[in-house]
Amino acid sequence: MNNPIKIAVDAMGGDNSPNKIIKGIELHSLNSNNVFYNIFGKSDLIEPLIKKTSLAKSSYKINHTNDFIKDEDSPLAAAKKGKRSSMWLSIESLKKEESDAIVSAGNTGALFVIAKLNLNMIEKIDKPALSALWPNKTGMNIVLDLGANIECNEKNLIDFSYMGAALHKSLFEKEESKVALLNIGSEELKGNNVIKNTYQLLSEKTNSLFEFKGYIEGNHIMDGNVNVIVTDGFTGNIALKTAEGTANFITNELKQALNSSLIGKISSILNIKNLKRFKNKLDPRLYNGAILLGLDKPVIKSHGSTDEVGFANSLKVCEKIINGKLIEKIKKNII
Amino acid sequence: MNNPIKIAVDAMGGDNSPNKIIKGIELHSLNSNNVFYNIFGKSDLIEPLIKKTSLAKSSYKINHTNDFIKDEDSPLAAAKKGKRSSMWLSIESLKKEESDAIVSAGNTGALFVIAKLNLNMIEKIDKPALSALWPNKTGMNIVLDLGANIECNEKNLIDFSYMGAALHKSLFEKEESKVALLNIGSEELKGNNVIKNTYQLLSEKTNSLFEFKGYIEGNHIMDGNVNVIVTDGFTGNIALKTAEGTANFITNELKQALNSSLIGKISSILNIKNLKRFKNKLDPRLYNGAILLGLDKPVIKSHGSTDEVGFANSLKVCEKIINGKLIEKIKKNII
Repeated sequence: MNNPIKIAVDAMGGDNSPNKIIKGIELHSLNSNNVFYNIFGKSDLIEPLIKKTSLAKSSYKINHTNDFIKDEDSPLAAAKKGKRSSMWLSIESLKKEESDAIVSAGNTGALFVIAKLNLNMIEKIDKPALSALWPNKTGMNIVLDLGANIECNEKNLIDFSYMGAALHKSLFEKEESKVALLNIGSEELKGNNVIKNTYQLLSEKTNSLFEFKGYIEGNHIMDGNVNVIVTDGFTGNIALKTAEGTANFITNELKQALNSSLIGKISSILNIKNLKRFKNKLDPRLYNGAILLGLDKPVIKSHGSTDEVGFANSLKVCEKIINGKLIEKIKKNII
Repeated sequence: MNNPIKIAVDAMGGDNSPNKIIKGIELHSLNSNNVFYNIFGKSDLIEPLIKKTSLAKSSYKINHTNDFIKDEDSPLAAAKKGKRSSMWLSIESLKKEESDAIVSAGNTGALFVIAKLNLNMIEKIDKPALSALWPNKTGMNIVLDLGANIECNEKNLIDFSYMGAALHKSLFEKEESKVALLNIGSEELKGNNVIKNTYQLLSEKTNSLFEFKGYIEGNHIMDGNVNVIVTDGFTGNIALKTAEGTANFITNELKQALNSSLIGKISSILNIKNLKRFKNKLDPRLYNGAILLGLDKPVIKSHGSTDEVGFANSLKVCEKIINGKLIEKIKKNII
């Protein structure tokens, strides 16, 4: 390969790993060029799986280690005893500049603690934030913070705005980035002081990265009028999980309704193509991959329970972030 | 009527009023006994509407006033100049003990300010909270606070737990009330200090009103394992509106999917009964009616944009609250 981008992959995290991880790598490789996978984990498990794939030998390296972080390990315990784990070593390969980004489907808390121990913060940024993709009517939102910081001040929310917009630009280079602050009223009067002050500061500054669109309420997140939604980690986490719960509730109710009679079942079969398209549009695997922003290397967290399709999509996020020069964009724009 | 319960109705608030209000009263009266409606508003508009209904003359009184609060009035302006408004007079009829509860589909902020000016707080309660019904897999949740208090301390969240459980018991007397605190992790370690302290205090106290079930995350709100969900007004408002937005997004996507081809349309027609049942279960009119808790009289806010079916349901909430002795339940249990 000709100077490929290099993704460090923790092969041991999440449900059904390393099976789904290796299958995910294969899926991703089918639609990508010039990517090299630095795979970390138990080679006796990984080798036989990788032999069944169509992956070229030149496109990966298996870095063997027997240790891995368990889902139930506390982040601090994991960081203390996990220096030989697949997660630690894959993050360390960023520090050593052997990889350009890292993705893991393992223990979220441990990933963040180990990433923070090994990598530097980008200058002028106080706190890292967890961001994710969230579908809207016309495309995708970036939403942050989703739980890394329970309490945030004005500086943090402004940093999140710039980092979120830089991420948006890296992933969707042709779109204009439009930032809004999540709040409980669209009038300038509502919300707490931190939000009001942030609104004021973002309104006063102009920048070439994004347009500031003011406040947004929870019911308008998916309207598609803005695409970068900024909030503190507590509120963001509650909003994201409430949306997940609501989506699950509704799709379950729909399934029950459509299967509750013979004629219902028959007409659902007639309608199967349309229902599939509906299901596909809402498929959470399509936007799998949360991005830890603020460190000087890209750290991507795949959902632990996703399958190979979801994992392949988080590899796609890595690839776009590297090619879209996310870290450079943040460094260049942050104030 | 034999010592009826009396509901004060602000006939002038919300879209398409007083038309939907009067029709809502008629709808409600068809399934209720022994309710008297104290209707406040423009009699020249109300009289002709009421004549078209099946309402018995002995079941209502029209209290004429020309003034009403507009949706765009600021709450304080409304309170200052609105002393002859239908909203003010209907709340005042609680103070005069001429009505047992009040419902309005008008300006939310004005309703709260005018209610607080006219009514007393229940002893030992520091802040009123806005609560609402939210469907879950097995029935209905009570969720509070939904925006009355942006910042809350431990005492507030404990008060909300007791008030929410009392409301739950008034509406669903046969069910056990199960209270949970909305948080971002199910482990005891997560969340901010106020939530952690509240958890501790609620765990230590036993009471006869509800069972305390600990923390709940946003994605489990609709699971049906708890039925009273307590949070501060900022988080609650974001959660409720995000759920609304997600539900709208999904049902719109579904509509588009089902109408995107001829065969889709035909099979949707075949499936119409099942889809209707699905739609009915999610119909927001079924749980229309937010309840302001903490005042010594029941104040109910109907959604401004609902129709007569929704307004009839908020009258049903009034009726259940009065018959379920909500205020007595709060007074007896609050600590």
